[in-house]
Amino acid sequence: MKPNPCLENIAPGYLFPEIAKRRSAYQQAHPELKVISLGVGNTTEPLFDTIADGLVREAQALATAEGYSGYQDEGSAALRQKISEVFYGGRFSIDEIFISDGAKGDVGRLQLLFGAGTPVAVQDPAYPVYVDGSVLIGAGGPHDGTGYAGIAYLPCTPENKFFPDLAKVAPGSLLYICSPNNPTGYVMTRAQLEALVAFANANGAVIIFDAAYSEFIRDKALPKTIFEIAGADACAIEINSFSKPAGFTGVRLGWTALPFGLKYDGGGSVNKAWSRVTATIFNGASNIAQAGGLAALSEKGLQEIRALTDYYLENAHLIKQALEDRGIRTIGGYDSPYVWAQFPGRTSWDVFDELLTKYNIVTTPGSGFGPAGESFVRFSAFGHHADVREACARLAKG
Amino acid sequence: MKPNPCLENIAPGYLFPEIAKRRSAYQQAHPELKVISLGVGNTTEPLFDTIADGLVREAQALATAEGYSGYQDEGSAALRQKISEVFYGGRFSIDEIFISDGAKGDVGRLQLLFGAGTPVAVQDPAYPVYVDGSVLIGAGGPHDGTGYAGIAYLPCTPENKFFPDLAKVAPGSLLYICSPNNPTGYVMTRAQLEALVAFANANGAVIIFDAAYSEFIRDKALPKTIFEIAGADACAIEINSFSKPAGFTGVRLGWTALPFGLKYDGGGSVNKAWSRVTATIFNGASNIAQAGGLAALSEKGLQEIRALTDYYLENAHLIKQALEDRGIRTIGGYDSPYVWAQFPGRTSWDVFDELLTKYNIVTTPGSGFGPAGESFVRFSAFGHHADVREACARLAKG
Repeated sequence: MKPNPCLENIAPGYLFPEIAKRRSAYQQAHPELKVISLGVGNTTEPLFDTIADGLVREAQALATAEGYSGYQDEGSAALRQKISEVFYGGRFSIDEIFISDGAKGDVGRLQLLFGAGTPVAVQDPAYPVYVDGSVLIGAGGPHDGTGYAGIAYLPCTPENKFFPDLAKVAPGSLLYICSPNNPTGYVMTRAQLEALVAFANANGAVIIFDAAYSEFIRDKALPKTIFEIAGADACAIEINSFSKPAGFTGVRLGWTALPFGLKYDGGGSVNKAWSRVTATIFNGASNIAQAGGLAALSEKGLQEIRALTDYYLENAHLIKQALEDRGIRTIGGYDSPYVWAQFPGRTSWDVFDELLTKYNIVTTPGSGFGPAGESFVRFSAFGHHADVREACARLAKG
Repeated sequence: MKPNPCLENIAPGYLFPEIAKRRSAYQQAHPELKVISLGVGNTTEPLFDTIADGLVREAQALATAEGYSGYQDEGSAALRQKISEVFYGGRFSIDEIFISDGAKGDVGRLQLLFGAGTPVAVQDPAYPVYVDGSVLIGAGGPHDGTGYAGIAYLPCTPENKFFPDLAKVAPGSLLYICSPNNPTGYVMTRAQLEALVAFANANGAVIIFDAAYSEFIRDKALPKTIFEIAGADACAIEINSFSKPAGFTGVRLGWTALPFGLKYDGGGSVNKAWSRVTATIFNGASNIAQAGGLAALSEKGLQEIRALTDYYLENAHLIKQALEDRGIRTIGGYDSPYVWAQFPGRTSWDVFDELLTKYNIVTTPGSGFGPAGESFVRFSAFGHHADVREACARLAKG
């Protein structure tokens, strides 16, 4: 049996396992040191009561004749309704909201809607799954050391206000946009989103809009969903997740909003095609996780989401301040749990290694997110306050 | 944007939604009738205490600083170890056991290991996901009304003792085998599995062995895993699930055993490639579900699995007896929760409609599982005893 040639195209060494390896090797060589991870964006704080109670009650109910439930492929109708109300002002019907086991799984599956022949354009830097998932289904080719063949990398840097040069996007492209951005922490303005939607509608592009960090937005002028923009219903698919706002990285729950208004060339319904894809290769999110998600969208649950995201935002502010105090230029950290720090003239892995060995702080090398991430590192605000304070103190000492 | 041509190849109307539609239309036209579903293989009985407690305790722990956990991409090491011990006599290392959110998701992802150019062979009839998933990634072509182009259908019928004609399998094929079989309920003998493994090793085929119903096997002479067969390590991947034995259809938990011994032509590790695929497009099963799975594999949990599968097997025996009493030939129902009933000379949908309208019983038309399923219907034993008894009484009345 031969390997999938698409799989062989993916560069070895997925970013986060490589970080884990370097961290682990360093810790083993220096067992006496306390290494603090501001690397992977993994939540650290316990669930708040209302949300945890939602999970517990459902787990208990499953042991009763009245409360037992089996397959829920399409997701709980109550949860889909609540998501539409809370995040989209009720504008979507429940058949436009698809419950997932988190954003990553849906990123992988969404590419099946368009297939190997689709031109792909990604913000650069970006969450690696957009590109890796595209290569896996054949929409991208071999890696040449900086990027994959056939994928348009759209640098988003301080120089262009983190807005991609859309002239590089071929008509009919699948265009991945993440805002608040992972890794840069940058949040697109309303005007920028309007320009994106106008471009997509004029050029037959479909925007995969990753809004997994939208609950960290505090600035009321910044849109929390692309569907605040007129015309987005005809060109956008939004992916979101309970992972970061509710602390569900381990519980696994997310959703995708896919409006009826999104059509293929020729008028076919993308929504209907997505129903078919998910019915074929996905069996739904855990009923327990779904009950937790419903609890998280209650009035009290939403207060808990606010408190939890506030907690991580406080970390982000501390990290940003500590870096700026050292004269390091940063982006993000205000409406996002990520701080993107620039180290001109140096490689990201070099900075990563220095931060690990000098300050015993784990970060994520920016180059792991794409060529334009080179010379940056990402600081994640997901951590205990005490650890973040200690990391900042180490940075301050110099 | 154009649709994925692979997606367009998939015949519209996934089997189970179509059944749900017909059932619902009938029920709406006859609201006074009690329709009993022996159609979809969906579990109906509440979780037993030990297993439910495992879920509840983990959900509670997530609200504590000590018990909180985030991403667990690779799955709990303790669960992987326990799976190796309980199901494989400890022969596998934890790195050969991959935790999934259930068999269906992994069936969809596994095809990415080999890609669009791989010849695919399936038992006919078979669980639709093997074929649909293959078509979705381009390993199968358009549907001609009876089957998909490029997929070898291997009839498994009473005439050939449900053992496929392997002469039809191209060298280097991906060969899907399910035992105990869904939908036929047939369980492969040791000699049959030995012949399969010998064939695969001699012809460079890889067997995807779906053992999701293995816990229903009571006959000690029948292998519960393909890895009981010498040589299987070099040619087989086993998919399994907590859905049916532990009642986790809604909770979502499964696993895939992929031995280090399985190599691509040229010696590359399929196990390593699978790590890469799952790291790229999957973020792990829910930590709560994993804790429930670990509880299910404790001594008490295993007794509960035995009790739950006994419950459904009793249903299967009743259904089988009721059909045989009417002179209807059946297969399965002893070591499997499915009874496969033959109605010579009739179409499956015709029988389905008659059973629905005459007895108000929902079944699954055999033709939905592949061309060789025509003239059969599948009775599922997943249901409350009282409902199954009533269904059997209706059948007895004639």
